[in-house]
Amino acid sequence: MTFRATVLTLYPEMFPGPLGHALAGRALANGLWALEAVQIRDHALDKHRSVDDTPAGGGLGMVMRADVLARAIDAVSPPDDPRPRLLMTPRGRPLTQARVRDLAAGPGAVILCGRFEGVDERIIPGRNLEEVCVGDVVLSGGEAAALLTLDACVRLIPGVMGKTESGAEESFSDGLLEYPQYTRPQLFEGASIPEVLTSGDHAKIAAWRRAQALAVTRERRPDLLAKAEK
Amino acid sequence: MTFRATVLTLYPEMFPGPLGHALAGRALANGLWALEAVQIRDHALDKHRSVDDTPAGGGLGMVMRADVLARAIDAVSPPDDPRPRLLMTPRGRPLTQARVRDLAAGPGAVILCGRFEGVDERIIPGRNLEEVCVGDVVLSGGEAAALLTLDACVRLIPGVMGKTESGAEESFSDGLLEYPQYTRPQLFEGASIPEVLTSGDHAKIAAWRRAQALAVTRERRPDLLAKAEK
Repeated sequence: MTFRATVLTLYPEMFPGPLGHALAGRALANGLWALEAVQIRDHALDKHRSVDDTPAGGGLGMVMRADVLARAIDAVSPPDDPRPRLLMTPRGRPLTQARVRDLAAGPGAVILCGRFEGVDERIIPGRNLEEVCVGDVVLSGGEAAALLTLDACVRLIPGVMGKTESGAEESFSDGLLEYPQYTRPQLFEGASIPEVLTSGDHAKIAAWRRAQALAVTRERRPDLLAKAEK
Repeated sequence: MTFRATVLTLYPEMFPGPLGHALAGRALANGLWALEAVQIRDHALDKHRSVDDTPAGGGLGMVMRADVLARAIDAVSPPDDPRPRLLMTPRGRPLTQARVRDLAAGPGAVILCGRFEGVDERIIPGRNLEEVCVGDVVLSGGEAAALLTLDACVRLIPGVMGKTESGAEESFSDGLLEYPQYTRPQLFEGASIPEVLTSGDHAKIAAWRRAQALAVTRERRPDLLAKAEK
């Protein structure tokens, strides 16, 4: 079974974009995952290929129509499609590494990229969309968030990373930020590598790294620490 | 003054990528901002163009060398460069819309994309890097996060969005998620637009939207609500 991503967007030319290079690009070329970008406009109902209309109740901007989105989703994801359907939106729940691991272990994802003032709310229950947010920032559209989400997923697909890469310790994987890293040269602009790391004492190194990871997490992300301690 | 972004990466071919299309792409073509992607390897110190080495103290993966990164940064960003220098890393502080607004109002940014097991810690104070994280997920590298950060910044550069777009209400801008939106058709698969929105009573509509924004924020992002109430 291959991880299959379908992205619904007004800018299919943005895909695969960065995902066509490096780790994800090689995996794509090797068939470890598949990516299809679908133009929502191709599923419009009128000859002007309209996808949006003014907000009910007034206000600036445009809202993407539920009926057009339904047609686009139905064309790529039938009711029995086992893939989760994500809507990239600042109103969503924040993406987590745990959710990314689940997604990467599954059959893929259908990702709808919002634009303008968002989508007609009725499409969300209507097509069982999971609202996902990446970072507390407002984007020009969901495309950059979709690319980032897929990048996070693809590296975890079995076979994509080499043994060395996949065995490495990572931020978030144990609920803590990663400890600081150092490498050659021993002296950089007057600063040495911390002595403990060149001591050869593996227990001491492990203890130092754990303490550093805790300290940096406490300082920068007390929210993560609160979760890790539960 | 133009917003000038310089990205330091092992994959310059990923840029402008999605930023070459749509809103950001038009603004780039019109000179409202500038983007330069620089290959870190071009600043390596040996003929193999090495950028990384094994972690001091042991462990899997590779760490990007401080001396190579320093040369790459110095080549694009002299000490008097007024632009902030961001390091995209899961260890960073989460990017916020407030930081994005500050960045967009400034001269631009130098963005260093981490890869592998991260960068030698000494480069961070050594070149005054601001560690930034986008979403609590691990990426194959900082590139997708850099693209997302620039997308969020570029739309706020004066002249990039039209009046209609820039005047619209947005998630995070007042500390709340956005209220639900609706548009034509009036009836979608048996679901109507909420009556209040077609009532023409502007005060009632505003009150309903405010209540909805509060409710969705309370349900999904109590952390934002706590901040907004301060």
